[in-house]
Amino acid sequence: MVANGRLTLVPLGGLGEIGRNMLAVACDDHILVIDSGLMFPETEMLGVDLVIPDISWLLDRADMVRGIVLTHGHEDHIGALPYVLPRLNVPVFGTALTLGLLRNKLREHHLIESTTLHTVRAGDVRTLGCFEVEWVHATHSIPDACALAVRTPVGTIVHSGDFKVDSTPVQGEPPDLARLARLGDEGVLLLLSDSTNAEQEGTTPSERSVGDGLVPLFEGAPGRILMATFASNISRLQQAVWAAQGSDRRCFIVGRSMLKNVRVAEELGFLHAAPSLFVSPKEHESVPDRNLAILCTGAQGEPLSALSRIATGEHPMVSLHEGDTVVISANPIPGNEEAVHRTINNLYRHGARVFNSSRHRVHASGHASREELKLLLTLTRPKYFMPVHGEYRHLALHAELARAVGITPDRVAPVDNGTIVAIDEDGIHRTGQRVPAGYVYVDGLSIEEADDVVFRDRRQLAEDGVIIVLVTVERSTGAVIAGPDLVSRGYIEAEAGSLFDEAREHVLSLQSRLEGERDWNQWQASIHESLARFFYKRTHRRPLILPLVTEV
Amino acid sequence: MVANGRLTLVPLGGLGEIGRNMLAVACDDHILVIDSGLMFPETEMLGVDLVIPDISWLLDRADMVRGIVLTHGHEDHIGALPYVLPRLNVPVFGTALTLGLLRNKLREHHLIESTTLHTVRAGDVRTLGCFEVEWVHATHSIPDACALAVRTPVGTIVHSGDFKVDSTPVQGEPPDLARLARLGDEGVLLLLSDSTNAEQEGTTPSERSVGDGLVPLFEGAPGRILMATFASNISRLQQAVWAAQGSDRRCFIVGRSMLKNVRVAEELGFLHAAPSLFVSPKEHESVPDRNLAILCTGAQGEPLSALSRIATGEHPMVSLHEGDTVVISANPIPGNEEAVHRTINNLYRHGARVFNSSRHRVHASGHASREELKLLLTLTRPKYFMPVHGEYRHLALHAELARAVGITPDRVAPVDNGTIVAIDEDGIHRTGQRVPAGYVYVDGLSIEEADDVVFRDRRQLAEDGVIIVLVTVERSTGAVIAGPDLVSRGYIEAEAGSLFDEAREHVLSLQSRLEGERDWNQWQASIHESLARFFYKRTHRRPLILPLVTEV
Repeated sequence: MVANGRLTLVPLGGLGEIGRNMLAVACDDHILVIDSGLMFPETEMLGVDLVIPDISWLLDRADMVRGIVLTHGHEDHIGALPYVLPRLNVPVFGTALTLGLLRNKLREHHLIESTTLHTVRAGDVRTLGCFEVEWVHATHSIPDACALAVRTPVGTIVHSGDFKVDSTPVQGEPPDLARLARLGDEGVLLLLSDSTNAEQEGTTPSERSVGDGLVPLFEGAPGRILMATFASNISRLQQAVWAAQGSDRRCFIVGRSMLKNVRVAEELGFLHAAPSLFVSPKEHESVPDRNLAILCTGAQGEPLSALSRIATGEHPMVSLHEGDTVVISANPIPGNEEAVHRTINNLYRHGARVFNSSRHRVHASGHASREELKLLLTLTRPKYFMPVHGEYRHLALHAELARAVGITPDRVAPVDNGTIVAIDEDGIHRTGQRVPAGYVYVDGLSIEEADDVVFRDRRQLAEDGVIIVLVTVERSTGAVIAGPDLVSRGYIEAEAGSLFDEAREHVLSLQSRLEGERDWNQWQASIHESLARFFYKRTHRRPLILPLVTEV
Repeated sequence: MVANGRLTLVPLGGLGEIGRNMLAVACDDHILVIDSGLMFPETEMLGVDLVIPDISWLLDRADMVRGIVLTHGHEDHIGALPYVLPRLNVPVFGTALTLGLLRNKLREHHLIESTTLHTVRAGDVRTLGCFEVEWVHATHSIPDACALAVRTPVGTIVHSGDFKVDSTPVQGEPPDLARLARLGDEGVLLLLSDSTNAEQEGTTPSERSVGDGLVPLFEGAPGRILMATFASNISRLQQAVWAAQGSDRRCFIVGRSMLKNVRVAEELGFLHAAPSLFVSPKEHESVPDRNLAILCTGAQGEPLSALSRIATGEHPMVSLHEGDTVVISANPIPGNEEAVHRTINNLYRHGARVFNSSRHRVHASGHASREELKLLLTLTRPKYFMPVHGEYRHLALHAELARAVGITPDRVAPVDNGTIVAIDEDGIHRTGQRVPAGYVYVDGLSIEEADDVVFRDRRQLAEDGVIIVLVTVERSTGAVIAGPDLVSRGYIEAEAGSLFDEAREHVLSLQSRLEGERDWNQWQASIHESLARFFYKRTHRRPLILPLVTEV
């Protein structure tokens, strides 16, 4: 089945445990890019807003890139495009809703004019260089999601996208398993499949089951409903809309991103609501509590999101009422648990009742569980298998599952982001090369590539603060004419008075030895080394020591 | 039932969402303290090692404190005593194992000579001032745990301690429900009960069920077993020991705290192992993989713990072997998920197989689920109820549960740490007073009380770094003779070259206006304000700006 030739797979996703939703596939001198998502930073990445894939490997081969194909419209699959496209302007292919959501972003970044977008439907095939890409209808927690079948000179690749096998989706058809089975009959060289839920036994509940959980809450709540979910979870919003309509409630949408997504989904026919359902910020105040549902962002406890600010009483438009019912329609993403719990605690403190996924049927995952993963493996019967999406533990479990259905370990390649994998006459194997792996992230207004030094400094600053030592010396004589003065920030000054006095003495004794030395770097190094040791010995802490020598 | 008189309840536990395991009960001029635990810091508390309760309320009334009574020997109930006792030297009462574990700590802190410890058994009664305290046998994830019945002039208080209703505990008897029922018959004024698992439906599995999960893993693993759990979880260690003995494995214990706890538990008869079971660090290397079980700390992913260091290849004694089986016998405490997942990812990367509680029966909670909570409520039939232990959301759910079994909301008081509650002729109510609520924590070698400023600074340093502006002026003339120089740490310097040049220009233009001004604080304030605005406008970041003016 493997013709002569070689396929190279490059998971671009930057460092970090979570998310790997940008993949480059190379064959001869053609490169195809699948998805381009952003990730939320891990706790370690202090001060970082967003993490985007490192595309330097692509930029070095920019003339080979034939296009970017998208599986669906979630942030972690399209969110990096506004940062990628200005540097790599290639055509982008996706379904109507996917591109509708993307257009919102491109407009915001003034990129709509400069970008070429091609709308496709499930079943369509597009030729990009030596790749023939077919979109295959799939089900996920957003409508208009697809898997991909990519014919290459070496063989056919199937990429699952994000998926679950939902036979009763909220909109549209069940997944096109028949097409996947036919692809299996024709022969699949490589399957790439979503590993997010590789820990979950059984099958994932249908998205529609969430509606069954929401309806009694919306009907039974004595006052307002506040429901938080992801802004891009259109199927979830549709079910909230239905629950609101069925319980005689109007809907007030809080949060710019959610409002924009709702508009796009309505325009494209993926969200259906009665004409007068939505109320404006002004109108919502006059709607009786029993007749109002507020839909908002903040299901992950993000500090600046609508729900967090409502929970702390800091939201400009919405404050909690006694008798409010809050529905958190999402699972916490790993790492966000503390923030979500803090939000829930605050909601309870204000007298709200809270319904979240830990005890109530108000959320269903969008990702396939183990039985569904096995189904996809057995339908497509790939020669090689590469588990994608999820942390390494998920990839490892998914790899184990593949072995259980008969794909031997030598044909399975679970790899971290940045590890290049090849398929050739030697089978599937790591090439030993890695793509450049720095952090690339959006910090404030600009995109930066930083090495670890900045984060090491930030961590040290965060843990123990900073102590600055100021010394002023006379250039002509090398004599100290002011200082040493010690200034600290973020440092716990318990017995700091006497400790700082001692530290000063310490620097003074160094100075007498250094006097005459005209290399100020030498001064700074000596002061740094000696004070770092002094503070560690006395406090078991390692504040960042910053000696500054000024010559006048 | 409420005689004339007044009971005051003061949950001391410092700020923060988690843990409240120190409670003061006051009646007339007598104060009884129940437990004295420490908490792990939340992510917000940058650089803090441990958080201990704020006892200033007690210190102001030190002559009224009759003693500290302990329910069981877990860190979050006894861990703060080494920091509390030097400032509040009162007698301490607890069961044999509880005091055995405490003695280890006191010895380390050189407090063993100065502390009075009284060993009690379940059924014992001790009179402390106007309080008669009875220890009532309970079951939890550590043996020798108790609930308390405290007779006061106002009425009887029942405190559940940490508990679950385990009819097949690993050591000792099932809980003394009969005694609790008799107390209910006699009349309970107030129940304080463990809310940790108030979200969990049904009943918590017996600790013994974990053994049933461990045995096949220990027997079936082709190579070594590495099992991580809490150092104080003696029942869990007992089951690991049994599983090791049954599968022909010897045990190597890694981690000082675990080793010490095992010794104490063995001495006191709470842990039983064959004489030759444990091997020394030296011996363990010569034991074949198939015959070795390594028991270690690090089940919470703590960066410096044995398991984390093994997972990253940094442990001095243990490195991973191909074919190792790792058992993580604990649930992640909220906030630790990311660290635990990182450790699991690293273990998989090194080729280990990992069994953790998300998919395998290798852990059982030590806390009562909703059916058990209802059982305790209905056995004791308290007039008033105060849910304790857990985050506010757990207290709120436990309060809801109490209403479901007939305790009306006006008789239930879920409160945050630091909120003083009274029971008197007006019923149970918040007094409106709060105990001083600062952070008190162990930072390096010393105990500190800090206000929020330090954490605010640390957060700012962590998010955006620091920019120091150095200016040297001549005292006599006020003329600038060196600088402005800008130095940064932890700040992302993308286009920093030109940005810093501009910032310098900015300061220079200020200087011309400030020249002649001899109040350097004024200089510093002006530079700070102007640069903070400049950097935010240009980068949407807020580095800590630290202008330092030196006069020579």
